[in-house]
Amino acid sequence: MAAWRERLAGVRGVLLDISGVLYDGGEGGGTPIAGSVEAVARLKRSGLKVRFCTNESQKSRRELVQLLCRLGFHLSEGEVTAPAPAACQLLRARGLRPHLLIHDGLRSEFHQVDTSNPNCVVIADAADGFSFQNMNKAFQVLMELETPVLISLGKGRYYKEAAGLMLDVGAYTKALEYACGIEAEVVGKPSPEFFKSALQELGVDAHQAIMIGDDIVGDVGGAQRCGMRALQVRTGKFRPSDEHHPEVQADGYVANLAEAVDLLLQHAEP
Amino acid sequence: MAAWRERLAGVRGVLLDISGVLYDGGEGGGTPIAGSVEAVARLKRSGLKVRFCTNESQKSRRELVQLLCRLGFHLSEGEVTAPAPAACQLLRARGLRPHLLIHDGLRSEFHQVDTSNPNCVVIADAADGFSFQNMNKAFQVLMELETPVLISLGKGRYYKEAAGLMLDVGAYTKALEYACGIEAEVVGKPSPEFFKSALQELGVDAHQAIMIGDDIVGDVGGAQRCGMRALQVRTGKFRPSDEHHPEVQADGYVANLAEAVDLLLQHAEP
Repeated sequence: MAAWRERLAGVRGVLLDISGVLYDGGEGGGTPIAGSVEAVARLKRSGLKVRFCTNESQKSRRELVQLLCRLGFHLSEGEVTAPAPAACQLLRARGLRPHLLIHDGLRSEFHQVDTSNPNCVVIADAADGFSFQNMNKAFQVLMELETPVLISLGKGRYYKEAAGLMLDVGAYTKALEYACGIEAEVVGKPSPEFFKSALQELGVDAHQAIMIGDDIVGDVGGAQRCGMRALQVRTGKFRPSDEHHPEVQADGYVANLAEAVDLLLQHAEP
Repeated sequence: MAAWRERLAGVRGVLLDISGVLYDGGEGGGTPIAGSVEAVARLKRSGLKVRFCTNESQKSRRELVQLLCRLGFHLSEGEVTAPAPAACQLLRARGLRPHLLIHDGLRSEFHQVDTSNPNCVVIADAADGFSFQNMNKAFQVLMELETPVLISLGKGRYYKEAAGLMLDVGAYTKALEYACGIEAEVVGKPSPEFFKSALQELGVDAHQAIMIGDDIVGDVGGAQRCGMRALQVRTGKFRPSDEHHPEVQADGYVANLAEAVDLLLQHAEP
């Protein structure tokens, strides 16, 4: 593998995944990953542009930012690209009225959206809300539509909490896709539209941007397909087998965000 | 389409699906489909061989047969091919100890099976048992195995109850397959091994047998791939679009089991 200097040359902007990179979720909200609070602060003090790019869909952006600030991070809602606001834009643009299969923590993001007489289903990481009853209701709504539309906020396979690996929205989206014989539209990583909108908000071109995440497919593969570079951290949902993934190879693997920031401050050219 | 006489020539044995063909499930057990009680009786009085071939995995065979007898049907456990007993054979043959993600009604089928220190997961139609907690537990068991083995009792997309269409085990199997990056082994329709064992118990060759079911893929497509003929009834989970399925065309579509039996008694050659 080329030296870090070569791999990081010309990077001017950084997209940071949140869960598994900044903190691990769990009881009481979660805990920061060692060194990440300081790493974010150092990155923001450098000349590099920084934006947060998350598939978080259990909480609203406001709740997520409040949680992160409680954990010691400094950031505001305006610095976060998240799937729920992007989904609301898409719903409005296409006149869609969703049945919401989502976590209660996310409902505030959809307060402005008409949910009467639904003509689509929006699915997000509902966690305990993925009861058989709730899944079946969403399934029945889809089966009653002439052209079923399923919008999935991300398609993550799983994420890590203190209690262990947890099934993410992608698994439940697959269940509905199979039952209905349809394919969901993904809003969130690894959708290229989502990365492009984050890049636009970051204000640099793809070739000048690097994504740092713990998901080899959703973060690393998705960013690379958009022309960005991408590092995988060995925190969060990282598993050693990720480094031999059959389809995706990161531009580098680092112990954690702190090491990624060390390397960026040393080798990138702000 | 050829005349019925041609399509049914040489049929000597009949495999009957149960749910959606004999009865529709629902509150209080379910209700027989009009004409089916008499149709089964007429078929059994004819010279044709008859066997029941179900993917039922909410109840044990004993409970299923007891329910059907209460609804007016005459049959015994020995006439029913069902996935749970087939799965038990497979578990024993391979020294597998399952974590069971199944309905409480099915547990008696697994009483002889060692479930300590699990090295595989068996998933069946757990209905309300498909809570997030139960799904996540099965997911975690799989992710802790070096070579995860997932055995799925059928892979049905949905079935019909009085309250409407209900998600079947196949949807939840897809969720675990996606989350773990694995492919399940299916025990039940449309697995060729399962149809072959039903045929052997029926005692006729594939080209002399016909399957009657409400599932265009699981019943009709599965049986045809084994060299059998297959009719789809317009009861149970049947939907008009099934008659224009992109991959599967039944050897005939009938209003219900009663019509299928009328045609068989008229045209088959016992």
